[in-house]
Amino acid sequence: MMRELLENVRRQAPLIHNITNYVTVNDCANILLACGASPIMADDLEEAEEITSICGGLNINIGTLNQRTIPAMLAAGKQANALGHPVVLDPVGAGASKLRTETALKLLRAVRFAVIRGNISEIKALVQGNGTTKGVDADVADRVTEENLSQAAAFAKAFAKKNGAVVAITGAIDIVADEHTAYCIRNGHPDMSRITGTGCQLSAMTAAYVTANPGRTLDAAAAAVCAMGLCGETARRRMTEQDGNSSYRNYIIDAVYNLTPEALEEGARYEVR
Amino acid sequence: MMRELLENVRRQAPLIHNITNYVTVNDCANILLACGASPIMADDLEEAEEITSICGGLNINIGTLNQRTIPAMLAAGKQANALGHPVVLDPVGAGASKLRTETALKLLRAVRFAVIRGNISEIKALVQGNGTTKGVDADVADRVTEENLSQAAAFAKAFAKKNGAVVAITGAIDIVADEHTAYCIRNGHPDMSRITGTGCQLSAMTAAYVTANPGRTLDAAAAAVCAMGLCGETARRRMTEQDGNSSYRNYIIDAVYNLTPEALEEGARYEVR
Amino acid sequence: MMRELLENVRRQAPLIHNITNYVTVNDCANILLACGASPIMADDLEEAEEITSICGGLNINIGTLNQRTIPAMLAAGKQANALGHPVVLDPVGAGASKLRTETALKLLRAVRFAVIRGNISEIKALVQGNGTTKGVDADVADRVTEENLSQAAAFAKAFAKKNGAVVAITGAIDIVADEHTAYCIRNGHPDMSRITGTGCQLSAMTAAYVTANPGRTLDAAAAAVCAMGLCGETARRRMTEQDGNSSYRNYIIDAVYNLTPEALEEGARYEVR
Repeated sequence: MMRELLENVRRQAPLIHNITNYVTVNDCANILLACGASPIMADDLEEAEEITSICGGLNINIGTLNQRTIPAMLAAGKQANALGHPVVLDPVGAGASKLRTETALKLLRAVRFAVIRGNISEIKALVQGNGTTKGVDADVADRVTEENLSQAAAFAKAFAKKNGAVVAITGAIDIVADEHTAYCIRNGHPDMSRITGTGCQLSAMTAAYVTANPGRTLDAAAAAVCAMGLCGETARRRMTEQDGNSSYRNYIIDAVYNLTPEALEEGARYEVR
Repeated sequence: MMRELLENVRRQAPLIHNITNYVTVNDCANILLACGASPIMADDLEEAEEITSICGGLNINIGTLNQRTIPAMLAAGKQANALGHPVVLDPVGAGASKLRTETALKLLRAVRFAVIRGNISEIKALVQGNGTTKGVDADVADRVTEENLSQAAAFAKAFAKKNGAVVAITGAIDIVADEHTAYCIRNGHPDMSRITGTGCQLSAMTAAYVTANPGRTLDAAAAAVCAMGLCGETARRRMTEQDGNSSYRNYIIDAVYNLTPEALEEGARYEVR
Repeated sequence: MMRELLENVRRQAPLIHNITNYVTVNDCANILLACGASPIMADDLEEAEEITSICGGLNINIGTLNQRTIPAMLAAGKQANALGHPVVLDPVGAGASKLRTETALKLLRAVRFAVIRGNISEIKALVQGNGTTKGVDADVADRVTEENLSQAAAFAKAFAKKNGAVVAITGAIDIVADEHTAYCIRNGHPDMSRITGTGCQLSAMTAAYVTANPGRTLDAAAAAVCAMGLCGETARRRMTEQDGNSSYRNYIIDAVYNLTPEALEEGARYEVR
């Protein structure tokens, strides 16, 4: 199954509109190109709807959000909805400030998202309307482990049901769920959290996968999460003693570039609950 | 000829003011340092003219343009004109939105450009006042090939004449032309289009070359295009099986860093029409 | 001594709020992760104070400052002061425009800084209220050499006394001083100046070191400067003939990631005056 989901990305080369933070934007653009898609970044209200209209999908990431870009996020999201384009939300740092939490909630009210991808602390902040997010990283107390996995999967399904969206909660174990089904994914490497923006990159890539696989949002989002984790493993094996997080970043994007549908099919490690 | 054009960049180390998008800005800064120039990025209206004044040349790139930065582009461009500094325009995504097309046209009316560098779809959008640009990449229907090369060279010369600027249309075959003469350049590698921002980087480097070679704008722009393509070839040969677009990006900037005037002289592949 | 200063960064993993330029922001985030800290970037006035409040330290960098972010810098700085969090100032390009010089001076009046880190031209511009800064690089006439080192150390101490802050003046020889004591540091490699943002990265890392070592600001800032220089040496030795400034950038961050407290202790080359 994973195989064809990636093949569709490569074949269709979807154009993805990104309204995203300036910290990791270059990596988001390069990972979209690496997976077979094309990126365009545009965050001014005056062109947001028009750029969304020429694209196949939209990725909204609220890291470094500001008063100028928030209206562009809303306008682009509504336009994507009107055109039937899938929209991904990455609520970076929800729970870390009122502005972030409230902007994420405002987006959830105004826009129908295909996928919402964040760490467990960010997703909990969206449920509670506040949070104990430690900056842009998950709070240790929140982490998904083997022990609380069933509970976390149930939480994800409930969140998905309430928001009418697939939710992807990434961490040591990733959960990708709609209201009925949860993929529990065990790809990835802990050192990925020592690179800035692996989450942002995954959100951008998720937008590419769901855009290229209409009607299969849950499977496509799960495939993107497996692909990112698997490439994190491949890249980790490539590292020498002198390499650190900067080379690791490059190697992950390189691995996405070289990932074959067959390797994804074989390397994806998940169970469905 | 190419040799001395690069030698002048290395000897003069021109300081280049960049008002450019936040997607590829780090690569633009590093490629300017790699070629021997110095970058400064400043996009606020309150300092735009002053920063331009202490620099030798100006590079205006409209990717991620916004209501705050457009006035800074205009002010810096006019100031550079007043001081006789060369200005490069990269009309990223012209044709993809009204804001981009109209901003590019407004810049063309208000500022005298030394070089305008874009892909064929972007340049056509400037001629037609609209376009079928596929995001920030060239539309397939527009591509310059051996079959339509003479026609494309004539188009470039006419565009150059109308705008009083050298035009650099980059793609599988690059055309760099003023109203009388067109360089047709066959350096480069198709995989360069799978890295974000190779065009942006080339525009920044072009600003360095034309600034360091006053009175030789056409030749200097052609040398920059040859240099970028040649470094794309050198870097491509360096790639291993595990490398992808992220390492390729690094290798190209590295190759620019290590490019000798002799290697450019020998490796540049062009004909003059 | 150096050993425990780094150990404290690794153990405490301080969360650092960065209001910084979009040119080098990704490298700043990755070097913070590499040294053992966590980054968060947030520059909108509406969340600046709140984000500062959840962090341990603040790094303000005025490269690509603008009308929207300057008020956020002031608000975050004051909030950090109120909470007793250390604040680092990187006055990028002070002396290159009135906006930069005046913004830096306004910040110095409104905010109590723990450390001010810049090149000699930028620091002189803060003293004189103007300058001959060549863009974002130090003016040759200003450079610290063995000949003028005593004079430069005295200048640094006087500046530190006047501003009640540790000052870190980086260049061929780095000086880190409070009003009584100056570290003269001879780590580093000249090619580091051919990478964009090594200064910005050092400022971010300095914020991590001083945050993790309360009450030891001078020593912690000196340790950060030694660490950056030492990693610049380590990374330089790793370079092959094909490598240039892009790979060098990656290797430096990798070296920071792999730097052990023991290696820092042994490799730091400094004298105290």
